[in-house]
Amino acid sequence: MAEEKNMVEFESCMKRQKDNDNEENGKDPYGNGISSVIPGWFSEISPMWPGEAHSLKIEKILFQGKSEYQKVMVFQSSTYGKVLVLDGVIQLTERDECAYQEMITHLPLCSIANPKKVLVIGGGDGGVLREVSRHSSIEKIDICEIDNMVVEVSKQYFPEVAVGFNDPRVTLRIGDGVAFLKAAAEGTYDAVIVDSSDPIGPAQELFEKPFFQSVARALRPGGVMCTQAESIWLHMDIIEDIVSNCRQIFNGSVNYAWTTVPTYPSGMIGFMLCSTEGPTVDFKHPVNPIDEKESQKSVRPLKFYNSEIHTAAFCLPSFAKRKISSKEN
Amino acid sequence: MAEEKNMVEFESCMKRQKDNDNEENGKDPYGNGISSVIPGWFSEISPMWPGEAHSLKIEKILFQGKSEYQKVMVFQSSTYGKVLVLDGVIQLTERDECAYQEMITHLPLCSIANPKKVLVIGGGDGGVLREVSRHSSIEKIDICEIDNMVVEVSKQYFPEVAVGFNDPRVTLRIGDGVAFLKAAAEGTYDAVIVDSSDPIGPAQELFEKPFFQSVARALRPGGVMCTQAESIWLHMDIIEDIVSNCRQIFNGSVNYAWTTVPTYPSGMIGFMLCSTEGPTVDFKHPVNPIDEKESQKSVRPLKFYNSEIHTAAFCLPSFAKRKISSKEN
Repeated sequence: MAEEKNMVEFESCMKRQKDNDNEENGKDPYGNGISSVIPGWFSEISPMWPGEAHSLKIEKILFQGKSEYQKVMVFQSSTYGKVLVLDGVIQLTERDECAYQEMITHLPLCSIANPKKVLVIGGGDGGVLREVSRHSSIEKIDICEIDNMVVEVSKQYFPEVAVGFNDPRVTLRIGDGVAFLKAAAEGTYDAVIVDSSDPIGPAQELFEKPFFQSVARALRPGGVMCTQAESIWLHMDIIEDIVSNCRQIFNGSVNYAWTTVPTYPSGMIGFMLCSTEGPTVDFKHPVNPIDEKESQKSVRPLKFYNSEIHTAAFCLPSFAKRKISSKEN
Repeated sequence: MAEEKNMVEFESCMKRQKDNDNEENGKDPYGNGISSVIPGWFSEISPMWPGEAHSLKIEKILFQGKSEYQKVMVFQSSTYGKVLVLDGVIQLTERDECAYQEMITHLPLCSIANPKKVLVIGGGDGGVLREVSRHSSIEKIDICEIDNMVVEVSKQYFPEVAVGFNDPRVTLRIGDGVAFLKAAAEGTYDAVIVDSSDPIGPAQELFEKPFFQSVARALRPGGVMCTQAESIWLHMDIIEDIVSNCRQIFNGSVNYAWTTVPTYPSGMIGFMLCSTEGPTVDFKHPVNPIDEKESQKSVRPLKFYNSEIHTAAFCLPSFAKRKISSKEN
């Protein structure tokens, strides 16, 4: 082990000057951090998780661009498959995307009987759509993604994720999810899934009360929302705010769940699950289990989600339970 | 975000030459990797998890040494408290050690009624002892740790972890756990907890059949073993081997559980729980719940473990369930 480590360090030293030259010569023109922390590696550094960095070794950079909203990068990693990065933050890797996409989708959709109309806010990679499409009861899937470059890049580099766009029930709108929801007819959706980036930056509005009010308005009575809600290890303060906001807006159930995702900061991500006033939703006990046999043949079998892990996702470590439970309904 | 990132990268560039000089001048004489991957950061790189690295920013290096068995380092990190590193691999950080120590201890001890005699193999930091000591039924706690430097360093730098050594029920032996177990009287222990490092290197024997045979022999009928058993995201092949080995040796229950630990590779760690022939042990449903109120006043309250997360820990993602369940009893 020591030998291999030293070898990596040695390579690191030797490549340093070369990489400095590359940066100066404009080989990392989008500032995506390639080769600049560990040479030949992508390192995720952010004030959202100060003092730590997760790095993946790059085999090949496949795409770099800058849209109207963000920097977009795709690279082939040596051990996590292809990786999608937005503004320097890993959004998905082929190796572990199953955990996030399956959980953010089936936690809400398996908690209600016969979901028919679903809205996805964000989720431009198509992975949530792929998961929604497993539910045969669904008639209409709307998606509102702000950045067309994310959609196009996913279709080109992540066909097994973007396969979700092929479902004929899907209608894609490129635009602002906040505005889309405000304009949506009241009581339209059985479920709204918010697949957003972190709440510091462009997605901040998606974690605030006015947005949650729009979501609640667009849901039918007893309809459900699921939104990504950070990590209990890193952002307990943000989570407490989200739970408080949701509790003021949603008059049904308000629960927090989490799952393991190795390439997200702290190796996990949480979800906020809320329901509107109406038929009671018991998020912890799925009433609409999804069996592998039921999933469409065009879609790969479920890799991560099952009914047991659905219920387990709501069990919190004591330090988080003490802070969250008092705020849940 | 972009600005802070660029600043970090800039600092990284500027410090590079300086750190190269430090290495050459012997300021990292133990080769612990300080400043050599990300300058001023500790980076964990290993052939056990190729192509990825987790890095923590170093505030101050508190200890570096080399024992008969391994390199030992303690540093103050900027956001995870003090960190203990053995042979370049993070063993614990003050911020997240609660998850590992509480789970590896209470998963077995809360699964049996009135545990009285417990053996800890490894665990020289004292954290497992701290957790064992919460159980008032316990009369005798033996620990066999091979490396006295780990014990001494923990007592000096991690008093809130090493507090476990203060329990008068504890008997510490410095020596080889494999030999200790072979010499132990048959049927001595209610529980054996194996708090080891990874199975590639000095701890390899602790994952093989002869060792498990010694454990089973030292346990009373219906006694339990818990050993750390890697990550389902990274080492499914190793886990399948461990499960197969255990199934051949233990004639009671054989189950796999996992927990989140942000500073371990892939952000999680698993545990192998086995029981010997005798009274049935249902690991998934704790019969000996430990309440916060019951814990000794000298010990901090439980931060992580509770009865719900105990049961949830046995729920596996589908990809792991398919491979492990067929091998469990």
